[in-house]
Amino acid sequence: MKADSIFSQARIFNPFLKIWETADIAVLNGRILYVGDAEHAGISSKIFIDCRNTIVMPGMIDIHLHIESSLCTPIEFAKAVLNRGVTTVVAEPHEIANVFGVSGISAMVEASKDAPIDIFYGIPSSVPSTNSSLETTGGKIGPKELKTLIADYPDMICLGEVMNYRHLITHFDALAKGESSDRTIELIRHMKKQHPLAAIEGHCPSVRDLDLAELLYFGIDSDHCLQDTEGMRQRFERGMFVEIQEKSVTESVIHFLESHDVDGLYSFVTDDVPPDILTTQGHLDHVVRKALSQGLSLEKAITASTRSPAERIGFRDRGVIAPGKTADFIMLSGDGSDFTIKQVFRRGIPAEESIHASKSYSFPESFAKSVTIDASFSLEQSFDIPCSAPNYAVCRVMKKNRENTYTAEAHRKLPVRDGRICWEEEEDLNLVLVVSRYGKETHAAHGFISGDILHDGAMCSTYAHDHHNILIVGSSKEDMTTAYNRILSLQGGICTVSAGSISAELPLSVGGILSEEPMDKLSSQVVCLQKSLRDLGIEHANPIMTMCTLTLPVSPELKITDRGLISTKTAERVDLILEHV
Amino acid sequence: MKADSIFSQARIFNPFLKIWETADIAVLNGRILYVGDAEHAGISSKIFIDCRNTIVMPGMIDIHLHIESSLCTPIEFAKAVLNRGVTTVVAEPHEIANVFGVSGISAMVEASKDAPIDIFYGIPSSVPSTNSSLETTGGKIGPKELKTLIADYPDMICLGEVMNYRHLITHFDALAKGESSDRTIELIRHMKKQHPLAAIEGHCPSVRDLDLAELLYFGIDSDHCLQDTEGMRQRFERGMFVEIQEKSVTESVIHFLESHDVDGLYSFVTDDVPPDILTTQGHLDHVVRKALSQGLSLEKAITASTRSPAERIGFRDRGVIAPGKTADFIMLSGDGSDFTIKQVFRRGIPAEESIHASKSYSFPESFAKSVTIDASFSLEQSFDIPCSAPNYAVCRVMKKNRENTYTAEAHRKLPVRDGRICWEEEEDLNLVLVVSRYGKETHAAHGFISGDILHDGAMCSTYAHDHHNILIVGSSKEDMTTAYNRILSLQGGICTVSAGSISAELPLSVGGILSEEPMDKLSSQVVCLQKSLRDLGIEHANPIMTMCTLTLPVSPELKITDRGLISTKTAERVDLILEHV
Repeated sequence: MKADSIFSQARIFNPFLKIWETADIAVLNGRILYVGDAEHAGISSKIFIDCRNTIVMPGMIDIHLHIESSLCTPIEFAKAVLNRGVTTVVAEPHEIANVFGVSGISAMVEASKDAPIDIFYGIPSSVPSTNSSLETTGGKIGPKELKTLIADYPDMICLGEVMNYRHLITHFDALAKGESSDRTIELIRHMKKQHPLAAIEGHCPSVRDLDLAELLYFGIDSDHCLQDTEGMRQRFERGMFVEIQEKSVTESVIHFLESHDVDGLYSFVTDDVPPDILTTQGHLDHVVRKALSQGLSLEKAITASTRSPAERIGFRDRGVIAPGKTADFIMLSGDGSDFTIKQVFRRGIPAEESIHASKSYSFPESFAKSVTIDASFSLEQSFDIPCSAPNYAVCRVMKKNRENTYTAEAHRKLPVRDGRICWEEEEDLNLVLVVSRYGKETHAAHGFISGDILHDGAMCSTYAHDHHNILIVGSSKEDMTTAYNRILSLQGGICTVSAGSISAELPLSVGGILSEEPMDKLSSQVVCLQKSLRDLGIEHANPIMTMCTLTLPVSPELKITDRGLISTKTAERVDLILEHV
Repeated sequence: MKADSIFSQARIFNPFLKIWETADIAVLNGRILYVGDAEHAGISSKIFIDCRNTIVMPGMIDIHLHIESSLCTPIEFAKAVLNRGVTTVVAEPHEIANVFGVSGISAMVEASKDAPIDIFYGIPSSVPSTNSSLETTGGKIGPKELKTLIADYPDMICLGEVMNYRHLITHFDALAKGESSDRTIELIRHMKKQHPLAAIEGHCPSVRDLDLAELLYFGIDSDHCLQDTEGMRQRFERGMFVEIQEKSVTESVIHFLESHDVDGLYSFVTDDVPPDILTTQGHLDHVVRKALSQGLSLEKAITASTRSPAERIGFRDRGVIAPGKTADFIMLSGDGSDFTIKQVFRRGIPAEESIHASKSYSFPESFAKSVTIDASFSLEQSFDIPCSAPNYAVCRVMKKNRENTYTAEAHRKLPVRDGRICWEEEEDLNLVLVVSRYGKETHAAHGFISGDILHDGAMCSTYAHDHHNILIVGSSKEDMTTAYNRILSLQGGICTVSAGSISAELPLSVGGILSEEPMDKLSSQVVCLQKSLRDLGIEHANPIMTMCTLTLPVSPELKITDRGLISTKTAERVDLILEHV
């Protein structure tokens, strides 16, 4: 029998018998035909890849990430992560779904077809993240959209992270008894009934005890949020799969995993990796490397990045080195302990060749014209915040910090003159404007930030979680206007303005959230933009992220959308002005 | 919070942490809400089931069986096995598919909807078992039928056992390279592409080494055939899931399972359990009991009958006692070591109540009129086997044995008189007639059996694997005619005739293969029929089975269908008469 290639005498960890073995791997048509002594089995090949003394492991599988976080297209993303040993991902495209709905997801799936890795998708379950009275989006995903997507694409492999966990817990009784309806519960019920083999992915930050049981009760049985040992133990104990991202790789978590027989109950994931981090530190390989450095055994690390994620999703054709599985391999240097990747193969072919053979994809032309502002909208007029108070207005302010992307609600007395709030001269305050951009009626809302803010200049972005309307921040009307106009003319992106002119910019031509540039170029642009935001005063480690999540109405505690200030505790709109003084 | 019921202080094996724990199980709407200290969690209930000192395990899941082997309808089958602790099955309906095609499978699914257990189905991949030139069937399942079934029924959960393993191995090169086409490979390819989460179930008797790898290569990665330790070890080593039926429960197999860390790689199944065995010995409980008696630990036995089969198929809502899972429980007596079932609960409700609440189903009227013989067919004339030999004809004979259902090909010189073979007076010989009954052109074929045969009387059956045409066996034309006429007037079933009159009969009114009687009554009928066949001379332990598989053209070595004698080695028709003498 003839194989296409034989990877001879590879060192392989056999996850079934839990032993290391030395074996030949024969590959035919991109799948593994045989593992063992190829000559003895009568298998020949023209191509022999000598793997003596080399650890060969399956390509890694990342089952929770958002390609949009890398700001690039699926193809460029794939090229970058393949070299990091990632050969399969399950991406959750809720960002592009907020911009374009089903057609955005369809375009992502189409854009992934000729990528040099396998890109599967989770169907976003939280688009919009709240509802249309709290944020304007370009698309929404309900049961009808879900059915369309599943019917069209077998690659829509699971229900993506259910984000409104707090709502489900708070209203558990009514929802469980069917006395109250909820879009997410409808989606889950449909999936459980019609697609019982598909995973329902969760998002359960710090949830414990009965609250955790309630999410499991609905069928939500994974969590990729920050873990500690007790929360993780509770998840394992009741059958919730844990997806460990870089921030969860702590000494105590790794010690728990190393000292308990819980293989198969967890995997490594990346969630969000921006282009500059991807280029410098890596992707899933970086998470694995960190886990190894903190004491996890190589066997467990391999299992948690290959077989366990495959089994979680239900992939039957990958994640192990065995006959019938995809011939996606990573060769490691030395004893593998520092997880240095020597070479990556996809479908039995060197990564370089796979990358070379991948075809680029053109997004629909309309995706490059996604910023539409109603003619009746005037930015100039928006700078005026009318107020009938005699002297002062007590206003709600989003207080930012340097540590995370949460804000606190603060109150601040601002002077009122000529029937408008005078915010321009205030110390430690930026105006925030959010303007809807989906060509329907244009909404705009005002807010203020304090704390970790711009001390100078302005920024504008269409990348503004999750609705991706236009976010404008600053203290200078002129700079804010310059930034806004630049983003309009770019039809999407992020820019900063300093002393009247553009200081850095990141054009995001695809729907205002993705760039079509290669990862390296994109990474340089991001580095410049981050530096520019830092120069303007932002102290958070990830300035872009801290600004672009000001608009996320499910993240504590006071955020802003095009429909107004949102108290995320109550999931309600609240007034900017609390009191006239 | 209010639950519907609380199973308090149950002894539970936690398969995630691999520990025994004592916990309350709170149930809401038939699903588990909470496992732990219910009072501490603030959960109350009007119904408390005291489980102190009682082992509570999940309902068992049998992922490979044929309901038709029990000869009864899904509802009656379900009632019988629920009391044995089986709460979920994956049935493979290739018998009814041979009779009615898609409409037969649809009826089985419909007939299962109100059953007191959950009945899922595998899509039969081998209907007919060969092709229409070798056997006439009432239905066939190809890619078109598969698509219809999956679109209509989310309960069609996997691709059922791929039976033509020998063909796939023999023609591996051409099939793998796409140079040759095959219906089964087409079905597999469709499933892998369109339904990648669905299992592809295998049938790999005694297959080893490269042959085994070739089946895995196509995606066939389970086997429920007879196991020995070396074959099983090879399957585990390369990721093939092993389904252990009663005949595979041997001391050496159990010793292997007990002494290796291979939990999750195997489950227990029943495959075929006839009604008399089900009633007297049991079902999956019997297999588990046998495994325990041979030294398997209770923990491993529970895992192999609950969690492992659930994970194999990809069920996400059952197989463990954890929040969100179906509240299907078995209470065991004592320490569980003899696997005596104290009580079974389905969806938190006692089995008796579930059985009481189940609604009966009426099969379509046409299913009771499934035996149609062309008016041109004459049984009387069929007894004459024309032959132009001067004195003798050397004929092929199916030599039966008492041990299994295989036959050997023997050759026998039979006298020829008046242009016909004189078989009536031969010692150790029965005539076998197979007559097609699907209302198309009627085909009939002659054969002979020797060895373990009827010494007197005759038998007739429409239950004749897998095509279920009419099988008539005997040495007396009169008795054979009586049997045949009785089966025609019953419109299906099995009967024996002795000394001119019906001696035992088993009416099978649904398509000639299923009875609508309750299991107890059916079991009595089967016992009578088995006794009658024994009285007529059959020595095999299961006389019905040994007769009704004479017609199975994929079982070694010489079998008979309505299209003629089939050499199952070459999968070709062969002549009855070898030589004129």
